[in-house]
Amino acid sequence: MQHDSRNLTMVMDLYELTMAYGYFLTKDVQTKVAFDVFYRKNPDGSGFAIFAGLEQIIEYIQSLHFSAEDVAYLRSLNLFNEEFLAYLQDFHFQGDLYAFEEGTIMYPCEPILTVVAPLIDAQIIETALLVQINHQSLIATKSRRIVAAAQGKAISDFGARRAHNMDAAVYGARASYIGGASSTSNVLAGQMFGIPVSGTMAHSFVMYYKDEYTAFREYAKAYPHNSVFLIDTYDVIGSGLPNAIRVAKEVLEPMGERLKGVRIDSGDLAYLSKKIRKILDASSMEDCQIVMSNSLDEYVIGSLVQQGAKFDLLGVGERLITARSEPVFGAVYKLCAVEEGGAMAARIKLSENEEKVTNPGLKKVYRVFDREGKAIADLIALAEEQIDESRPLPFVDPKKPWKERVFENYTLRPLQVPIFLGGKQVYQSKPLREIRDFVARQLETEIWQEEQRFENPHVHYLDMTCAYYALKQRMIEEKRG
Amino acid sequence: MQHDSRNLTMVMDLYELTMAYGYFLTKDVQTKVAFDVFYRKNPDGSGFAIFAGLEQIIEYIQSLHFSAEDVAYLRSLNLFNEEFLAYLQDFHFQGDLYAFEEGTIMYPCEPILTVVAPLIDAQIIETALLVQINHQSLIATKSRRIVAAAQGKAISDFGARRAHNMDAAVYGARASYIGGASSTSNVLAGQMFGIPVSGTMAHSFVMYYKDEYTAFREYAKAYPHNSVFLIDTYDVIGSGLPNAIRVAKEVLEPMGERLKGVRIDSGDLAYLSKKIRKILDASSMEDCQIVMSNSLDEYVIGSLVQQGAKFDLLGVGERLITARSEPVFGAVYKLCAVEEGGAMAARIKLSENEEKVTNPGLKKVYRVFDREGKAIADLIALAEEQIDESRPLPFVDPKKPWKERVFENYTLRPLQVPIFLGGKQVYQSKPLREIRDFVARQLETEIWQEEQRFENPHVHYLDMTCAYYALKQRMIEEKRG
Repeated sequence: MQHDSRNLTMVMDLYELTMAYGYFLTKDVQTKVAFDVFYRKNPDGSGFAIFAGLEQIIEYIQSLHFSAEDVAYLRSLNLFNEEFLAYLQDFHFQGDLYAFEEGTIMYPCEPILTVVAPLIDAQIIETALLVQINHQSLIATKSRRIVAAAQGKAISDFGARRAHNMDAAVYGARASYIGGASSTSNVLAGQMFGIPVSGTMAHSFVMYYKDEYTAFREYAKAYPHNSVFLIDTYDVIGSGLPNAIRVAKEVLEPMGERLKGVRIDSGDLAYLSKKIRKILDASSMEDCQIVMSNSLDEYVIGSLVQQGAKFDLLGVGERLITARSEPVFGAVYKLCAVEEGGAMAARIKLSENEEKVTNPGLKKVYRVFDREGKAIADLIALAEEQIDESRPLPFVDPKKPWKERVFENYTLRPLQVPIFLGGKQVYQSKPLREIRDFVARQLETEIWQEEQRFENPHVHYLDMTCAYYALKQRMIEEKRG
Repeated sequence: MQHDSRNLTMVMDLYELTMAYGYFLTKDVQTKVAFDVFYRKNPDGSGFAIFAGLEQIIEYIQSLHFSAEDVAYLRSLNLFNEEFLAYLQDFHFQGDLYAFEEGTIMYPCEPILTVVAPLIDAQIIETALLVQINHQSLIATKSRRIVAAAQGKAISDFGARRAHNMDAAVYGARASYIGGASSTSNVLAGQMFGIPVSGTMAHSFVMYYKDEYTAFREYAKAYPHNSVFLIDTYDVIGSGLPNAIRVAKEVLEPMGERLKGVRIDSGDLAYLSKKIRKILDASSMEDCQIVMSNSLDEYVIGSLVQQGAKFDLLGVGERLITARSEPVFGAVYKLCAVEEGGAMAARIKLSENEEKVTNPGLKKVYRVFDREGKAIADLIALAEEQIDESRPLPFVDPKKPWKERVFENYTLRPLQVPIFLGGKQVYQSKPLREIRDFVARQLETEIWQEEQRFENPHVHYLDMTCAYYALKQRMIEEKRG
């Protein structure tokens, strides 16, 4: 099988199939179940995360199928009978899928995606859904942190070469853009998603020519409007910058062009950038931009800003594309309800670890806004619960259930929307640019600044209606009893 | 463009193309250059790393091409002229590529792969080569650490859902296997590479049925030879284990079958596993295996071993598939020589950071063995240098160049082999199982145990012949002068 052709249906943990076969043997093929996707902890101590990957989930479900070759491989495992293999060969997803819109700010323990589907359908898609959400949400969230640290200066994703293989480079670029990066160096990501692409030269270009001046001159002739010279191959101040200025004056300015920028990729970026800025300005090159790169992340960038480093664009590589400080996003897929006698009966998992106790049953999740339009909490309700927004709404904070709490003068926004109903897609992915704008708009207008700071951010409330809280308590008691 | 069809040629940093266009305009299309791939630091403080990803590099180069659609996208960027776009449309790799065999134990700063090719050919493949080497070498090296910590107990890759997208799951499983994992949960990785697949049930299977006993019974009926029950959904000792034993006795044993195993995925694994072992043994189920999972890595596993935890198989997920403790492998691609007047002239990069100074020129790299077959050093020589192994070999340790050193009673093994010559593939990838065995054999017979320990491993020597060291010093002087 070639590296560039693949059936993503087969990216699944084997246990999805061994469980499916168990269900198949007991003839439980049409029983409906519900699974929630949620995560337990924001990465890097953030106050929130960004939901990303929905478009690829839709594509995955649309193309879900087992080819004859796949079925032949599964037969070779000697785990399944022929009836089940025939069932797989005809398999198509028939269920419902609800999710947050892509780019929604999200918080731990709320259902960001819910699948209500026949048992086997719901099970088979678990791994692929989680891969997509875990990867893209991780990178979008990391990207937002880096963008925030840069305080308005542009960020470009330069990470492809350090990504965890091809998809991580491509979908990582997509997620970086959702989080607020302005461009990517990755050509395929530009082609697939319309992300602006950026990039000029590597050290090899400078080393190839007989000297630095010649390299810059040749590049300037190729890109008179758009030259950014990498000036740290030999000696930034002693050679790179003087050669860049010389080419600007001797080659570009006589053509009526200006040097767009210089880039440094090593050394003391704060010190060098201030010195470079001063020399450029003294050479009447105030419009020449400074681009910096070299193992940047939100902490290094924060320090550069604090030191008054002079820069216009930051190329961020390995620490963005791998989310190096916390490369694991832990979304999970948990059964919350099972069809019994035509209704969906709630299920709960207790576990040895308290934080692994699940939220049972079909539910609705709302974002609660105050009169100024600020998101004051998220709220879990029973699926069938009707809430009259014109009236005060009593609720329970499950971390302090003894307190009596009431929302007044609030509005509610349901966070999940239908994506598939009965196997049919009923939602169109938004253009990527809109998803990126949606993220920025929420953070600007709806989400408290106190949730956006890096140190001890405010913990967003995840409240429950009284009826939902009562259900959860009752189920815990039943299981314990 | 669909998620499952793609042209990996387009996974490249834009600067590969902007540089290529610069070269194209100066008509330097046929000039040959040489690039070395090397990395600077072993991840996690390891004493070595494992070279992986070569098979995918070969596939990538074999299928390298720009489709009409790709060219149309590149045209839309308004960066390139029509002659260059026509050149890309006909582009095929025409160069030579040499590399370590896949699975070779490797060390910092030695050339693990060298490309000698026309300028543009060499430049265009940079990003994809680095992605593949960085990802798979990272995971193979991490996998080896985890396997070593388990002291002979089997490791299975359970990481798919936390991988950085689909490729990271699939090629991560491949790399994990190279590093010594025994199996993977990832079905596509099993199908593509013949890795044994493993997996049984999730908590959802247990929660779906009206009680745990029923769930285990149904599973046992589906897989009488091969049942592993997940026993921590409600209460390991109070419910999960007793139900597992009851199904073993009431369902499996009457059929002449035995319960293969039980799995725990939460709680205090050391404490629970010892208690489980005791209860199983007291129930005449000494052959029932204990499988453990839950955020394992080499440190947690080391602690479990030290505490006398009882287990037969470990499912290792997120911390393996993301290499969480150090998710960046930093291989780079550096120009080392340029064709001048028919010969390859060495190039060097100095940089502001001392450790970023490159090793110039075309070179050969050898592993040096003592009479017992232990690898005592790696050695860089000039490409044209002839070494007579029957005679003592003076060399320089570049970290202590003032010391006079000589190898005596040694043998040399060249580490790079030709993979492509003149664009033609001259090397066949080894079966994955052989690559895995090769890793194990080197570590068992050739590589010092002192390099394999986790704490302060011995630093493998990377020495230079006197002639090569002289070349490097001369080039540094020239550039500084």
